[in-house]
Amino acid sequence: MQNFKVKGFTAAVFTPMKENGDINLEAIDQYATQLVADGVRNIFPCGTTGEGASLTVNERKQIAEKWLQVCNKRFDVIMVHVGADSLRDTQNLASHAADIEADAICVVSPTFFKPQSVDLLLQYLREVSTAAPSLPLYYYHNPGHTGLNFSLESIWEGLKKTPVPTLRGVKFTNSNFYDMARVQKLAGDKLQILYSTDEQLPSALAMGIEGFVGSTYNYAGKGANRMLEAYKKGDMKAVQKEYAMYLSFIPLLFKYGGNVGVNKGLMKLARLSKIGPARLPNPTLDDKQLQSMDEDLKKIGFYEWIN
Amino acid sequence: MQNFKVKGFTAAVFTPMKENGDINLEAIDQYATQLVADGVRNIFPCGTTGEGASLTVNERKQIAEKWLQVCNKRFDVIMVHVGADSLRDTQNLASHAADIEADAICVVSPTFFKPQSVDLLLQYLREVSTAAPSLPLYYYHNPGHTGLNFSLESIWEGLKKTPVPTLRGVKFTNSNFYDMARVQKLAGDKLQILYSTDEQLPSALAMGIEGFVGSTYNYAGKGANRMLEAYKKGDMKAVQKEYAMYLSFIPLLFKYGGNVGVNKGLMKLARLSKIGPARLPNPTLDDKQLQSMDEDLKKIGFYEWIN
Amino acid sequence: MQNFKVKGFTAAVFTPMKENGDINLEAIDQYATQLVADGVRNIFPCGTTGEGASLTVNERKQIAEKWLQVCNKRFDVIMVHVGADSLRDTQNLASHAADIEADAICVVSPTFFKPQSVDLLLQYLREVSTAAPSLPLYYYHNPGHTGLNFSLESIWEGLKKTPVPTLRGVKFTNSNFYDMARVQKLAGDKLQILYSTDEQLPSALAMGIEGFVGSTYNYAGKGANRMLEAYKKGDMKAVQKEYAMYLSFIPLLFKYGGNVGVNKGLMKLARLSKIGPARLPNPTLDDKQLQSMDEDLKKIGFYEWIN
Amino acid sequence: MQNFKVKGFTAAVFTPMKENGDINLEAIDQYATQLVADGVRNIFPCGTTGEGASLTVNERKQIAEKWLQVCNKRFDVIMVHVGADSLRDTQNLASHAADIEADAICVVSPTFFKPQSVDLLLQYLREVSTAAPSLPLYYYHNPGHTGLNFSLESIWEGLKKTPVPTLRGVKFTNSNFYDMARVQKLAGDKLQILYSTDEQLPSALAMGIEGFVGSTYNYAGKGANRMLEAYKKGDMKAVQKEYAMYLSFIPLLFKYGGNVGVNKGLMKLARLSKIGPARLPNPTLDDKQLQSMDEDLKKIGFYEWIN
Repeated sequence: MQNFKVKGFTAAVFTPMKENGDINLEAIDQYATQLVADGVRNIFPCGTTGEGASLTVNERKQIAEKWLQVCNKRFDVIMVHVGADSLRDTQNLASHAADIEADAICVVSPTFFKPQSVDLLLQYLREVSTAAPSLPLYYYHNPGHTGLNFSLESIWEGLKKTPVPTLRGVKFTNSNFYDMARVQKLAGDKLQILYSTDEQLPSALAMGIEGFVGSTYNYAGKGANRMLEAYKKGDMKAVQKEYAMYLSFIPLLFKYGGNVGVNKGLMKLARLSKIGPARLPNPTLDDKQLQSMDEDLKKIGFYEWIN
Repeated sequence: MQNFKVKGFTAAVFTPMKENGDINLEAIDQYATQLVADGVRNIFPCGTTGEGASLTVNERKQIAEKWLQVCNKRFDVIMVHVGADSLRDTQNLASHAADIEADAICVVSPTFFKPQSVDLLLQYLREVSTAAPSLPLYYYHNPGHTGLNFSLESIWEGLKKTPVPTLRGVKFTNSNFYDMARVQKLAGDKLQILYSTDEQLPSALAMGIEGFVGSTYNYAGKGANRMLEAYKKGDMKAVQKEYAMYLSFIPLLFKYGGNVGVNKGLMKLARLSKIGPARLPNPTLDDKQLQSMDEDLKKIGFYEWIN
Repeated sequence: MQNFKVKGFTAAVFTPMKENGDINLEAIDQYATQLVADGVRNIFPCGTTGEGASLTVNERKQIAEKWLQVCNKRFDVIMVHVGADSLRDTQNLASHAADIEADAICVVSPTFFKPQSVDLLLQYLREVSTAAPSLPLYYYHNPGHTGLNFSLESIWEGLKKTPVPTLRGVKFTNSNFYDMARVQKLAGDKLQILYSTDEQLPSALAMGIEGFVGSTYNYAGKGANRMLEAYKKGDMKAVQKEYAMYLSFIPLLFKYGGNVGVNKGLMKLARLSKIGPARLPNPTLDDKQLQSMDEDLKKIGFYEWIN
Repeated sequence: MQNFKVKGFTAAVFTPMKENGDINLEAIDQYATQLVADGVRNIFPCGTTGEGASLTVNERKQIAEKWLQVCNKRFDVIMVHVGADSLRDTQNLASHAADIEADAICVVSPTFFKPQSVDLLLQYLREVSTAAPSLPLYYYHNPGHTGLNFSLESIWEGLKKTPVPTLRGVKFTNSNFYDMARVQKLAGDKLQILYSTDEQLPSALAMGIEGFVGSTYNYAGKGANRMLEAYKKGDMKAVQKEYAMYLSFIPLLFKYGGNVGVNKGLMKLARLSKIGPARLPNPTLDDKQLQSMDEDLKKIGFYEWIN
């Protein structure tokens, strides 16, 4: 477990749903094939993009199982997000992830009861860790979403008092690059940071990040890989050139609402027509909105860029 | 349903747990008897105080059932909190509450995916409403906890566009008395507001509130009832005199951390020795902390006041 | 100074301005006469309502002088707000307030550089105190506006380490009635709390508050006094009846933007046609907006109520 | 003015003060000589680092004059920060900057009265612009400090309705690199973005930024220039190597409090023994703290790195 690493791009996969709101496991086969074709190396089901918090425990298990079943040989890593508000649910999902032989788990903090201290957060993670002692655990650091205001550095420091045996890395969804770089320096190989705000990829590359988890890699794997290749060659102009498309299509997501439902709409247009609706309280774009977004995407050359 | 009202004090009951962290249904019989003795008229299981968010769906059902079973004849209203992050879980719990013949349900917003607009919040509530069409529904308004920044007035206004058929009231956990008073004026009898920040009871009384939900009524029912009686007689000095004890014991809760776990510790000392630990990420007071809090409570005359 | 108190209603007076944006000292004579007629007992110039932060030091001095000159015998207390971002400016204004024989000063925290601790806030206030050692000093507690997140109780506790010799009270612009009540209990006669969120007056009365500072007392002095009288008689129904007008006209302020400029517009309609524009970044209502607001105010019977 | 640009590093200079708290103009000569030696090309007086908000208008004028007098030929640009809470003060300072032939001005939003809309912010800036129509104006975008939550993109869009004639650029003190990159794309040469969170320099370089304003360039000019040179050569490893020292000394600033007073202490140790105290509410490190910081700095090799 010491040497476990996640390299390149990880798609935080959407959860396909039927029109009646049930999850749609059948759509996952085609989904996986497309991701492979796009050069995506890893899969992250049931996270924010996957509407994990809107799913029941049973649905989450079915989805994780399906990804494992369908994809295992074609991807490097299947990292299942198991965080839930209830510790018992989280442990249940973690244990299930181990049973189905996922490669790793990721855990977000509860958000209704926010841990009042770093130590309580780490105690919580430690309890999750014991439910899946064989799986590398990544902490999902996302202060903007969870409202937890602990710096990553304070969490790293807190591990001295309250170790989390299987902790292997962090999914870092934040813009505080200084905080991220501090922990890279302090932790070295003991903690891998996966960067997770796709629309700031160049800034993360400049900090030496090598693994990326995000929703845009569901459809933009090819462009993202071109950016990464350019960076490896030291060609920052080429990085910025590919990045220019991010500066064109991300605003369209915000134009239509900037939430998981909107992103799911873009996925429908770009990659998987069977992706289906989002679950409330996330909204679903209607046909008129989809058509309008489609025209917007055509205007900026999005479809050419992703294909 | 039009005339449904909740009067007097409602205990937001704690969830008794065993030392191993399992829920402890047996403890509820004694618990109920004490609440009756304290003049508490209504029961609110599985809310914030009840650690609802830290429980599994199955645990929540068992707890609700147990309260119904044990208490039904001795209390006016059993209002089950059914809010969960997943709409499907919330609907499941709402439907279950109807099946076991609870008197009402209460629903908090999801907190991982916060509704991005009042309308999405109301669409969500409407979907919950359809799962329990016979039960009065109270919206749990708690911006400080959920991070939803909609005023109650904006939610009231939003109902014009997106009605929630069974909506009957609001559990108002907030300090914006102006916002509360506005909705009292606008909604009149169409929406009952239950005030829910116990340590500001006099300020709520002055606004004409008649129903109160809170954690302190688990042990302070007698004192709270004396305050209410004094107010009804127009004796504000007597209100303030009883309130003085709130100003003495609430700071002790904050002294030890100010969370559900600490409150559960006070409950253990004051009313129910079998209450047990809290579930992470809420902490549990250790014996030394409990002893120290016990001494603090004695010094201020807390035990005399509640008995 | 030990026994200094401010009773009844204090108008946080607007700063009259000419159309060219200069301050208009002449308008203050008529202004004062009206306030006396409305039963307002005290004056608070250059605060938030007075756009103190938007004025130069020299303008603030002129305004304070004018109020002292015009009003001194007809009001109980002239409390000059002297807080500015620069300690030197604040000291200069405090010393000037003493020179012109104001009755008291009030000081808000700097807002560009927010004190990083209660102790730094108190060190700052202590330095202001030394510039006007003869004048009672009121701390302007307004977390929502300043962004300082210290509870009033933590500030009270901090005085043990860093006393502010002339501190006599607090202008409390907040909805945390529990925090306010705690400090009333702890400080007793050593600190007078003036409540300052007019639209929650009944909730403050119920906590035993006797002094009130606010912008609405510029035009609503009669109604506010009726509320206070009703409370003194223990007639909470009558309090709520007068308060109903607050619930009608305050929403109109929000309808037009909810800022000092809008409030100045209402003042123009209600009491002082010469009040003039607000200074940027506060906006000024145009004639069309004023006319619309006038119609709104007529519909709710506002003018009858204030006269 | 169309072609005005600020290249390389700009020192946001501290304001030297005497032990009695008066400003110390004499110390500026030596200060300037050192900055030239460090390869700093531009000067930014009276900003956050310069404690502008804690100074009187008169002090700010003296400081700006002194820098112009002492430095003009040795630096490319003297950009005077003129933002103050009062529009009249800001205009006065802007006009003065033009009179003394500063090269540019920079303006932060008022922070006591925060503009309630982008349009009010732009109206405010436009009024400042008219007071110095010949000087390029840079908007100081610093949401974390000012509490203004407008994205830079929304401000750029707002200019269509309310142009600010002399607006030439933005001092961007924020971590939202996506927002910054969006405006670079939209505005092109019409708006120059100067990056201003020194401890994230690599992330800004990766976005193509060419001008940098910050407090660390008061002492770290040589190291910062090495970073910039490495980036220009496409050598990201060398960038990260120099950046490693930022990851070592910035934590020391936070260790001692992370405010302007602490930074002034580091300046005292590193570059200018006469820098003097900070003004309240910013604290001043005492001798013991300075000695401790000095030892910390020695341990990490800071002095070698800056010299």
